[in-house]
Amino acid sequence: MRAVIFDLDGTLVDTVYGHTLAWQRVLAEAGMPVEGWKVHRLIGMSGGLLTQAAGHEIGRPLSDGEAEQLQKRHGAVYKELMPDRRPLPGAVDLLRHLRREKIKHGVATSGRRADAKASLDALDLPDDMVVVDRDDVERAKPEPDLFLACQERLGVTPEECYVVGDAVWDLLAARRAAMLGIGLLSGGYGQEELYQAGAYRVYSNPAELLDSIYQLGLRPS
Amino acid sequence: MRAVIFDLDGTLVDTVYGHTLAWQRVLAEAGMPVEGWKVHRLIGMSGGLLTQAAGHEIGRPLSDGEAEQLQKRHGAVYKELMPDRRPLPGAVDLLRHLRREKIKHGVATSGRRADAKASLDALDLPDDMVVVDRDDVERAKPEPDLFLACQERLGVTPEECYVVGDAVWDLLAARRAAMLGIGLLSGGYGQEELYQAGAYRVYSNPAELLDSIYQLGLRPS
Repeated sequence: MRAVIFDLDGTLVDTVYGHTLAWQRVLAEAGMPVEGWKVHRLIGMSGGLLTQAAGHEIGRPLSDGEAEQLQKRHGAVYKELMPDRRPLPGAVDLLRHLRREKIKHGVATSGRRADAKASLDALDLPDDMVVVDRDDVERAKPEPDLFLACQERLGVTPEECYVVGDAVWDLLAARRAAMLGIGLLSGGYGQEELYQAGAYRVYSNPAELLDSIYQLGLRPS
Repeated sequence: MRAVIFDLDGTLVDTVYGHTLAWQRVLAEAGMPVEGWKVHRLIGMSGGLLTQAAGHEIGRPLSDGEAEQLQKRHGAVYKELMPDRRPLPGAVDLLRHLRREKIKHGVATSGRRADAKASLDALDLPDDMVVVDRDDVERAKPEPDLFLACQERLGVTPEECYVVGDAVWDLLAARRAAMLGIGLLSGGYGQEELYQAGAYRVYSNPAELLDSIYQLGLRPS
């Protein structure tokens, strides 16, 4: 195994509960209340699919204009609810370890560039970090496009890549990209949900992954 | 089986994500950031135990004064983040069904009276509803005191009671009270986490419980 591709929100930065409550509030405001636990399990898929899923919950499809409007409003409410973005324990050290050991790695996120930037800034990354975001691909997770674009930029094959993510959407997209998924509990899913979605290993958070990194058989390139 | 004892937050009203983000913010403000997913899994235990657990996460015990201060601040932040309390789908109908079928039931919550009142008001309950809250007992969940006090007021034995809750704390307290636990996914735990904590059945939310109520063998009294 030669490379690690990371999801961003819930995997490297602790933002899932802010995103969940922001979506819950935005959907309720718009007259389409969705239960919190169901919103939670939609986080990490593309914003377009998320608003489609919300439409399914309330029993009618949303127009493109409505979906776009909701996503804008979500961005504003999220900033209000969670002005600070905190790296998850071990996230900064884990990325530093991979750099030092010359193990290829990158970030692939369903977030749009402006939102991703705020999370990336919290991680103190070098300028040459490989980052693929929603604006780089046609379709976000659970389509495999983000991970495949990241793998190409890293110059490795899909079979040589691990994908590290906190949501079933990461694991589903990893399988479709022929990559091996690793789940983190830091997004709030239960361990079995992640294994059942195809995780090869599950760790609590980036700190536990770093402690256990010898289990992954990664080699430098 | 002759009675059903309900947890309140996350089981009948959709408040878990608001409580999680409020605690996450209050703890971070106080210089003791705890990861969101860990805060999520503390919701539903007594406020005192929750602040103790937060102390464990940051590596030093909190004084009673600090704990009290954090709980007060949590109440204020929660109201700001989640001013409206929504019943979970099926909650109002489920309670109405039990009343109509003359199946004994009550509510037992780790919340203090003032906070519980706001959630109860959202459920449109009759005045004679049996409700036991944090102010009625010495120790909240996962101690069995709340469920035992509720069962006594219902005039049944522990063995005749189901406990319905969304958190492992409800299931742990139910086992200690010799009652049978039923888990709901509406608090955001994974299904297997609830079964592993001892749930006899797991349903999505109160609506699915109501649809499946014949599975529980309840009889009127």
